[in-house]
Amino acid sequence: MESTAQSFAPSLPQIQNPLSGPGLFRHGDSAPTWLVQATKPVRYEVRMVDNLLDPTREDLALAGAGERTGNRRFIVLDDRIEAHYGARLRQYFQAHGLRPHFCVLPAEERNKTMDSVAHVVRDLNEFGISRRHEPIIAIGGGVLLDIVGFAASLYRRSTPYVRIPTTLIGLVDAGVGVKTGVNFENHKNRIGTYFAPSLALLDKTFLTTLAERHLHNGFAEILKIALVKDFRLFELLEEHGPALVASRLRSRQGEGDVAQEVLERAVQGMLEELQPNLWESNLERLVDYGHTFSPTIEMKALPDLLHGEAVNIDMALTTSIARRRGLLTLGEQVRIGRVMRSMNLPQYHPVCDVAGLAAALDDTVRHRDGLQRLPLPVGIGAACFVNDLTTDEIRHALDDLMAGGLDGE
Amino acid sequence: MESTAQSFAPSLPQIQNPLSGPGLFRHGDSAPTWLVQATKPVRYEVRMVDNLLDPTREDLALAGAGERTGNRRFIVLDDRIEAHYGARLRQYFQAHGLRPHFCVLPAEERNKTMDSVAHVVRDLNEFGISRRHEPIIAIGGGVLLDIVGFAASLYRRSTPYVRIPTTLIGLVDAGVGVKTGVNFENHKNRIGTYFAPSLALLDKTFLTTLAERHLHNGFAEILKIALVKDFRLFELLEEHGPALVASRLRSRQGEGDVAQEVLERAVQGMLEELQPNLWESNLERLVDYGHTFSPTIEMKALPDLLHGEAVNIDMALTTSIARRRGLLTLGEQVRIGRVMRSMNLPQYHPVCDVAGLAAALDDTVRHRDGLQRLPLPVGIGAACFVNDLTTDEIRHALDDLMAGGLDGE
Repeated sequence: MESTAQSFAPSLPQIQNPLSGPGLFRHGDSAPTWLVQATKPVRYEVRMVDNLLDPTREDLALAGAGERTGNRRFIVLDDRIEAHYGARLRQYFQAHGLRPHFCVLPAEERNKTMDSVAHVVRDLNEFGISRRHEPIIAIGGGVLLDIVGFAASLYRRSTPYVRIPTTLIGLVDAGVGVKTGVNFENHKNRIGTYFAPSLALLDKTFLTTLAERHLHNGFAEILKIALVKDFRLFELLEEHGPALVASRLRSRQGEGDVAQEVLERAVQGMLEELQPNLWESNLERLVDYGHTFSPTIEMKALPDLLHGEAVNIDMALTTSIARRRGLLTLGEQVRIGRVMRSMNLPQYHPVCDVAGLAAALDDTVRHRDGLQRLPLPVGIGAACFVNDLTTDEIRHALDDLMAGGLDGE
Repeated sequence: MESTAQSFAPSLPQIQNPLSGPGLFRHGDSAPTWLVQATKPVRYEVRMVDNLLDPTREDLALAGAGERTGNRRFIVLDDRIEAHYGARLRQYFQAHGLRPHFCVLPAEERNKTMDSVAHVVRDLNEFGISRRHEPIIAIGGGVLLDIVGFAASLYRRSTPYVRIPTTLIGLVDAGVGVKTGVNFENHKNRIGTYFAPSLALLDKTFLTTLAERHLHNGFAEILKIALVKDFRLFELLEEHGPALVASRLRSRQGEGDVAQEVLERAVQGMLEELQPNLWESNLERLVDYGHTFSPTIEMKALPDLLHGEAVNIDMALTTSIARRRGLLTLGEQVRIGRVMRSMNLPQYHPVCDVAGLAAALDDTVRHRDGLQRLPLPVGIGAACFVNDLTTDEIRHALDDLMAGGLDGE
């Protein structure tokens, strides 16, 4: 029983130190003001695992489960994963005595809409999920993870979920952070939330069934981390990139595990940037490199370009801009261009013109609260932020890309 | 310029104390696990003001504005407020040299949908709002505030907003908390977010144009606070309720400001409950009193019952249940029933039947993560939580309500 009826004393304003932390502070007598302060703790685990679907492994069976969790599981998959792994998933859950419910969504960028979110919400309603102790488990690419994370954050104002990325871009980007969202009328990720999963499970064996183009797509985000903060990672891509694609990042015995090192560096680099800035209170974000012009490029070219491909065009453009500003050398530009070429990543697309790119920058300026805050590479492995990019600079850089790209080949 | 390229050392796992607070913690070498921990600070002000639209007052002109805010304002109104106050609002902003953009939405519960959220998002896009320093200002009833708060929380994953409630229920409930949301396929507030406004401005002069039924509607939520935690507030409602409605809570000189005391106690009581539990980590919530059966009753009866009316039916039902359990006396039950009657608040509606109420409880159990956590009044001004309510108890209580209500009249 609770009773606080006697403790109320409105005539005694509770003026405590309003800067001292959580609490309710009341000021003034005739026209009071209350200050409500609280802190929300967020905590999640990103765990690398091997062979998640091996029935002897427990990670998936226990994912998001607590003491009160029964044997039902609510799984959302994209159609590609359902096709490749549906049977193995059913076997896995059967082996663990669990009853999975599967909700299958299309994995394409054009389906990243509120309609897909509504599909998940409707299914959650029919399943009758319990609010806190029956986990939502999302297994799929970045599009699927963003949709399910969004639905989970909205359903009853937040329902826990687990992220299991199955693409390379998911493993190093969408799968490890806290952003969710969908596109809105051709605006990339215009609506969404920050909502941490309770757990992310990273299993690179899913890459064995990934189309080569989608591997290249993921390497664009790895290259991003390399360019802005990890020269060693760049060297690994330069030396081993095509071999890593060919091997689908399988670990190879005896010659040092390059695939594992590349993945770990990419995830570590990403998390180092995200953790101190989880809600983007600081809008100067290194991980926004390649994400200034690309949202507009990607949506304009839809479905022509994958996300990482659009990001790569943005990185090619800004590498040229940086080189023209003297922030990196022509030699460094050529090295970057060669890595992009070796990973089949485009440096140009016909939807790019100067006016369109300038408009894309304007939209990003609104997203970055009135300033460009444009990350530019400084050499290879470092970056700076500028606020004074001109349309002429965009024009000259675009000319470079149309005339053969960063390596001029 | 930032560079952390040299600081990376993946071979040295960073095992710090993972319970020590924010940070990125890495464990393990061959298959690493990262623990991401962060805390999000939330802080907002709830300010009582008089005559917000008086051009000599600055609260509205400065609401949500900072150093970099220009003279544009993005205002979302419901159609009732546009009709009553549109001209005064334009005059107000003109007097302060501001250029307002008005986005007008219907205020009815049946429009509390994702379509209305999409309407606001589309308008925000066209306005080209800056992400952090151009405030969204919501002026209207609870439905409008919930819709706009939801849109603000989703737009670019969060855009600051200001809440200005114009109904009594908005002043004491929807206007002062952090919940946002819309209905989904006849499920009340099934999707939403927790998203604090930067500021809530409470001006009871808006009540002068409020229909009497909507005043009664607001008194249901005030009665809720009284019943679970504030006996003095109950006495004020018992003694002055109808007079407060008749005067539309205008302050009266010379006889003690009962209207002000009632409003302050209601807001203070609400905030005392919300502040320590802003994200509902504890699902035993006193302010959930009257909100166990009412979400289903309200949606079934739509548009017949207002929110507070449905809440009152729930409170009448659970008062009878509590009395039958011996948690309050027949005399107390009669007093509660008389206050409800004096405020024209219904204690029954034909959509209520035993099976429907049992199903409503089942849905709420899912919302409360598998337990009833049902608040029941204990006397007047205190409450307890129970988990063992039976269908028979619902039946008997419903019989009471059909046979004349709590006061048997």
